[in-house]
Amino acid sequence: MQNKRGLLLVVSGPSGAGKGTVCKRLVEKRSDVFLSISATTRAPRAGEVDGKHYYFISEEEFTERIRTGGMLEHAVFCGNYYGTPKRAVDDMLAAGKNVVLEIEVQGAMKVRSHYPEGVYIFVLPPSMQELRKRLTERGTETPEVVEERLSTAAWEFTHIQKYNYILLNDDVEKAVCRLEAIIDAEHCRTERNLKFIEEVCQS
Amino acid sequence: MQNKRGLLLVVSGPSGAGKGTVCKRLVEKRSDVFLSISATTRAPRAGEVDGKHYYFISEEEFTERIRTGGMLEHAVFCGNYYGTPKRAVDDMLAAGKNVVLEIEVQGAMKVRSHYPEGVYIFVLPPSMQELRKRLTERGTETPEVVEERLSTAAWEFTHIQKYNYILLNDDVEKAVCRLEAIIDAEHCRTERNLKFIEEVCQS
Repeated sequence: MQNKRGLLLVVSGPSGAGKGTVCKRLVEKRSDVFLSISATTRAPRAGEVDGKHYYFISEEEFTERIRTGGMLEHAVFCGNYYGTPKRAVDDMLAAGKNVVLEIEVQGAMKVRSHYPEGVYIFVLPPSMQELRKRLTERGTETPEVVEERLSTAAWEFTHIQKYNYILLNDDVEKAVCRLEAIIDAEHCRTERNLKFIEEVCQS
Repeated sequence: MQNKRGLLLVVSGPSGAGKGTVCKRLVEKRSDVFLSISATTRAPRAGEVDGKHYYFISEEEFTERIRTGGMLEHAVFCGNYYGTPKRAVDDMLAAGKNVVLEIEVQGAMKVRSHYPEGVYIFVLPPSMQELRKRLTERGTETPEVVEERLSTAAWEFTHIQKYNYILLNDDVEKAVCRLEAIIDAEHCRTERNLKFIEEVCQS
């Protein structure tokens, strides 16, 4: 069989580009793709399940894991730590599962320094007008926050060239199909199949 | 719209791996993919149409085209020239058509020196036993020719790492699906979309 190791898919993109929706739909559609579960020090909200929505851990444990290299990346929001536990990701990859990390640009670049063989995907809105429209229509953000998101997006765009692929999200179903094509194509990359090629040659 | 330029898909692989069948099926299935038509100096056979099966040209014209850089690659078989006309390929790529060149390893490496942005795909049989079986079951080759093909295959395998992808042909329909995924994914590659990214940023 071809490449048996799972792919690490790192998905970034501006707020409002729809990366969450695309990743959620991908995981529903494909039984070989799994979302990475983040660890956090914040308290669980009503209905949140440990090991499903997040791994809820203490601040002491979180900082200890950072210290010992157990977090692939982490960030602090509103005084709480959020991060990606390395062990869980490594176990899934070794088991042949494709793992999706939905993280912002700085975290993605941190992960890339450890996993250059990962697949780095930047979700793009069709235009900045459309991004503004999507952010405004959510109705949850003040005009100031919308402007702040747009200026963050402009900064994030300056990092696109560090990603392997752009994923245009003009339509969720189309974007998911493109993402599936990226997964299937990446499994065929020569450098991921050196062992398999050797097996064929020696058969 | 994303990357508007067509992709140059260069497909190689040992005799008996099934690259011809896979490419033919791909072109039937996808309206955006076209087979490149070779030029040759051999006489047309009954039913062969100029500009469809081959471009039939004189030896004088063929060698003149080689001299002026009009052939992407060429080879001589049984005293006749065969080659890929550069102009036809460039016109199709510029018109946004994906072009398939089904050529052997040496020709592919020659093309790669001119088109590093091409997508280089090596078709693999599931095993060498299966390759031997397919070559034998054709019934058109003598045992000596089968052995010769297998030893050529062993040489071709030493060049696989110069290809971007391997395409396992365990089943024609599955192989065609993987090839379609490669095409769709390559159109999403960041370096093919720099102009599109700039358009989105400035919109």
